[in-house]
Amino acid sequence: MRGLFASRRAILAALLTSAAGAAFLRSPAMAQGDPLPSWNDGKAKQSILDFVTAVTRDGSANFVSVPQRIATFDNDGTLWVEQPMYTQFAFAIDRVKALAPMHPEWKEKQPFKAVLDGDMKALAESGERGLVELVMVTHAGMTVEEFEGIVTGWLATARHPRFKRLYTELVYQPMLELLAYLRANGFKTFIVSGGGIEFMRPWSDRVYGVPPEQVVGSSIKTRFQRQHDIPELFRLAEINFVDDGPGKPVGINEHIGRRPIAAFGNSDGDLQMLQWATTGGGVRFGLIVHHTDAEREYAYDRNSHVGHLEKALEAAQLDKWTVVSMKDDWKRIFPFN
Amino acid sequence: MRGLFASRRAILAALLTSAAGAAFLRSPAMAQGDPLPSWNDGKAKQSILDFVTAVTRDGSANFVSVPQRIATFDNDGTLWVEQPMYTQFAFAIDRVKALAPMHPEWKEKQPFKAVLDGDMKALAESGERGLVELVMVTHAGMTVEEFEGIVTGWLATARHPRFKRLYTELVYQPMLELLAYLRANGFKTFIVSGGGIEFMRPWSDRVYGVPPEQVVGSSIKTRFQRQHDIPELFRLAEINFVDDGPGKPVGINEHIGRRPIAAFGNSDGDLQMLQWATTGGGVRFGLIVHHTDAEREYAYDRNSHVGHLEKALEAAQLDKWTVVSMKDDWKRIFPFN
Repeated sequence: MRGLFASRRAILAALLTSAAGAAFLRSPAMAQGDPLPSWNDGKAKQSILDFVTAVTRDGSANFVSVPQRIATFDNDGTLWVEQPMYTQFAFAIDRVKALAPMHPEWKEKQPFKAVLDGDMKALAESGERGLVELVMVTHAGMTVEEFEGIVTGWLATARHPRFKRLYTELVYQPMLELLAYLRANGFKTFIVSGGGIEFMRPWSDRVYGVPPEQVVGSSIKTRFQRQHDIPELFRLAEINFVDDGPGKPVGINEHIGRRPIAAFGNSDGDLQMLQWATTGGGVRFGLIVHHTDAEREYAYDRNSHVGHLEKALEAAQLDKWTVVSMKDDWKRIFPFN
Repeated sequence: MRGLFASRRAILAALLTSAAGAAFLRSPAMAQGDPLPSWNDGKAKQSILDFVTAVTRDGSANFVSVPQRIATFDNDGTLWVEQPMYTQFAFAIDRVKALAPMHPEWKEKQPFKAVLDGDMKALAESGERGLVELVMVTHAGMTVEEFEGIVTGWLATARHPRFKRLYTELVYQPMLELLAYLRANGFKTFIVSGGGIEFMRPWSDRVYGVPPEQVVGSSIKTRFQRQHDIPELFRLAEINFVDDGPGKPVGINEHIGRRPIAAFGNSDGDLQMLQWATTGGGVRFGLIVHHTDAEREYAYDRNSHVGHLEKALEAAQLDKWTVVSMKDDWKRIFPFN
């Protein structure tokens, strides 16, 4: 009997360490201790705790069943650093440099010349067309596995120009706690990013605990083909879907097929996602990360091109979304602090 | 102490009834009793049991970690009846009839006239263009919620012409057991269908235990818009993605972002999905449901337009996929038998 009890206890302990077990066993919103230790006490933190308590308290009028607990997170600027440029753009620039020896014509051809010369002004002048050209040259013309290998290899060594850290280290500790807290309360957490879906999937599980099938993003088209009887998916230089702005609710509907009850963003590109998630009945939650901390991270909003935040900040007032001031609400910024 | 033990036992019992708990606790492939009671003993059933045992036995060379246990299932003809016509096509025909009073011009206009006259020959002559027109008229021009309501309402009352049952009752009991067996062994089960993604999602969880976010299918485009400040997703009369044939691996990659290790289909539309799933290293599993039972269901393959099976049957021989003979391998066909 004792042996049986011991083994059951071992199984229980094992279960408690698994997300599924934790979600099942733990009283709603009652993790031991503070589930958000990197958040300062205040309105922002309290609004999160109140929301989770409201939707998980069994028998409450605001109770939401586990399958409906869908939360969507923007990535750039919401979960990891997006300044001074989107990480994926830094990747594209490094790829152009790596591929340049095979393309001598790039020395005279824009936007490649600008990249190779480090001439950011000329690069900006090449506009959206130049940007798309850079993306296609560096993201297409290979199989999905080859691209995954390139991304993984780059992220293993590339460093952020200011923090001198791997990009995957520059994730926000308070947001990691928030992701874990929601999952511990039965939420399924998704990334819904304007960034490339295949650029995030190789590391989203390891870094955020979000598996590839819960990542939504922009994409280029792929083609199924067989080379010497080996099936492969080949990446084409053609845009498939832009998961930004009004594209985010579209991407959410296509990938998830349910309307989230909570959404988290930091820029005008997240406006429609937050509008979509915070209407539709019942208690809902919207949150905007406001970058107000030039010292520990960056301070920017309406004057920045990257992560431009203006309309979504106005909407936050009207729609009563939580606005997080990075400087005031976050005790720590990064896991390594 | 006794009270504590009892409560732990109660928790354990509850966990054992949840899929996650069952996957965690149960010895691989060792469900109590026969996990596939509606399957006759034979090569097909044994191949399933052998595959699941191989990939779930800890320490074995063929072990596959839980997150990589992805299984994809075609829907029409693999999980439910697709004869004498795809259910979604029956839905479109009924919708045309329901909408006809608002469209007096349809009485003289093909393909609508053919539908209203019940003239299947004229309908067939309208070809793919006519089909697309029928789909657009019946599937677009409304919000995603409105469409969901229409589908749900139709499925609650429409009956299959031969079996006189709801379409959602005409699902294959052996396949329901297979879905449950795989999930109990840590697999995540997905539907990957040529049918409309929004046509399946309203009932996939209830009928198959597959939640909306694990359904991949064909789709039309949607547009995010705000009507009187209310955000909505409006369905447009424009094809977004055709999840059939070579589109299936593309859809799988886009939605799931991992290559399945097992795939289940019944027609040439599933050929590329099975090719994609059964290559890529390690033990993998492909299965074709062969409709050989005219008495209890239908018998068809290379001579049928709906569910045409020819190339995939040839590939099954070469690639050693399991071919299920409905007549010989299935003890029961439907849950109500």
